[in-house]
Amino acid sequence: MTATSTTQFRVRYSETDQMGTFYNAHALVWFECGRTDLMRSLGLPYAEVERRGVLLPLTEAHVEFLGRARYDDLLTVKTTATSEGRARVRFSHEILHADGRPVARGWTIHAFTDAAGKAIRPPEWMAKLMSTHA
Amino acid sequence: MTATSTTQFRVRYSETDQMGTFYNAHALVWFECGRTDLMRSLGLPYAEVERRGVLLPLTEAHVEFLGRARYDDLLTVKTTATSEGRARVRFSHEILHADGRPVARGWTIHAFTDAAGKAIRPPEWMAKLMSTHA
Amino acid sequence: MTATSTTQFRVRYSETDQMGTFYNAHALVWFECGRTDLMRSLGLPYAEVERRGVLLPLTEAHVEFLGRARYDDLLTVKTTATSEGRARVRFSHEILHADGRPVARGWTIHAFTDAAGKAIRPPEWMAKLMSTHA
Amino acid sequence: MTATSTTQFRVRYSETDQMGTFYNAHALVWFECGRTDLMRSLGLPYAEVERRGVLLPLTEAHVEFLGRARYDDLLTVKTTATSEGRARVRFSHEILHADGRPVARGWTIHAFTDAAGKAIRPPEWMAKLMSTHA
Repeated sequence: MTATSTTQFRVRYSETDQMGTFYNAHALVWFECGRTDLMRSLGLPYAEVERRGVLLPLTEAHVEFLGRARYDDLLTVKTTATSEGRARVRFSHEILHADGRPVARGWTIHAFTDAAGKAIRPPEWMAKLMSTHA
Repeated sequence: MTATSTTQFRVRYSETDQMGTFYNAHALVWFECGRTDLMRSLGLPYAEVERRGVLLPLTEAHVEFLGRARYDDLLTVKTTATSEGRARVRFSHEILHADGRPVARGWTIHAFTDAAGKAIRPPEWMAKLMSTHA
Repeated sequence: MTATSTTQFRVRYSETDQMGTFYNAHALVWFECGRTDLMRSLGLPYAEVERRGVLLPLTEAHVEFLGRARYDDLLTVKTTATSEGRARVRFSHEILHADGRPVARGWTIHAFTDAAGKAIRPPEWMAKLMSTHA
Repeated sequence: MTATSTTQFRVRYSETDQMGTFYNAHALVWFECGRTDLMRSLGLPYAEVERRGVLLPLTEAHVEFLGRARYDDLLTVKTTATSEGRARVRFSHEILHADGRPVARGWTIHAFTDAAGKAIRPPEWMAKLMSTHA
């Protein structure tokens, strides 16, 4: 069983660069928007996760750039979560135009740490959520 | 007596937009670079200020955009600090091309707060620094 | 007669800083989101304005920071356009929490230029739109 | 024979997030700073490459996050360029603290396109530069 969410957003002017498409690093920001929405749809907003003292910093990120997207284009990010071993979680992301043309895809891997950045085992409530959905 | 610092930097590709100049919000980021360098030159890096539990959040910002600047242009930000009443500090900023052509100028006003965001009086060591230099 | 639009958005993790609120420059980005939505609601998306060879670069920006906003907070930006003399346009912006608590307010003034950055008079279709709505 | 450059920079406040370290997407921005400096050190600033009508958009990016870095930390990005087949170039990046502790490493792959985004063969002057140095 896998959890997936779909989020729509428009390319901001601030996200364009002089090539006339979006600046590459913003793909990682859009991935983050997808993760945020997926966590909320699972009933555990990431803001709440951090309030419980658990952080999910990235340990790895990968992006493939598949097509241009311009200012004000309406894009969709599809996000899926899967377990990555016993102590990590992988979010897979796909960014598409409204007509399905691909813009970017990729994934991020996240560790679990306490507020000081020390690695921890996924808390039970998180592990349960993951095993149910991912 | 006034404290002033001068910092050089190049326009990053990430800071351009599809107009071919820098995206407007980055002027505020460059102002921040100027503040950081000014504080360090006064012997009190802002990172140290925060370690002492004092934050200087912005309460107001103003920018005039005076000229274009392109990717990889070498710019200078000149920053000056002055007291703004008894409980605030004003940083004035000027951004110039290497040949003196103006890019932007403006100012930011900062309150003093504790780590929780509660307004505080400027600590004595800060007030002393301000009265000596600003 | 005045044109106004209202846009909702959530604070992205990328927009936070180590103070735990949003980084100041993002207020200008959120202002831009408001302008984009206002222009679209007037039937003249800014992307279309640029396709017609007209740019509206900022000449001035002002922001007052009125309250904190945290990651994932749901905010609203209200945007109003008014003429600023015969050759400029002013957008006024107000950013609020869902319960009405203020986050920031401010304004931006924009010139009209051609694609090369040369100042032009507002084109007739733009002037007509402005006189009808702003 | 391989071209390598080393660039120093400080973490900006704008690049922090509420975890207290840098926001992940900025690693890609710092990689870009490394590429810019490497191209300049090779005698062919990327701004000049674009003036000749050649763009090097990213087709792929990979980042491993190896350690935290805080506001105002002095970091180094080391960048190396190598050919990636006949029509692409790979930049490899390593970001380190002043004392050598790793912050991030990764790579980006770039295609050659014309100003409209159409794939082209690397121009001869670019191929020559690459074969000499990379």
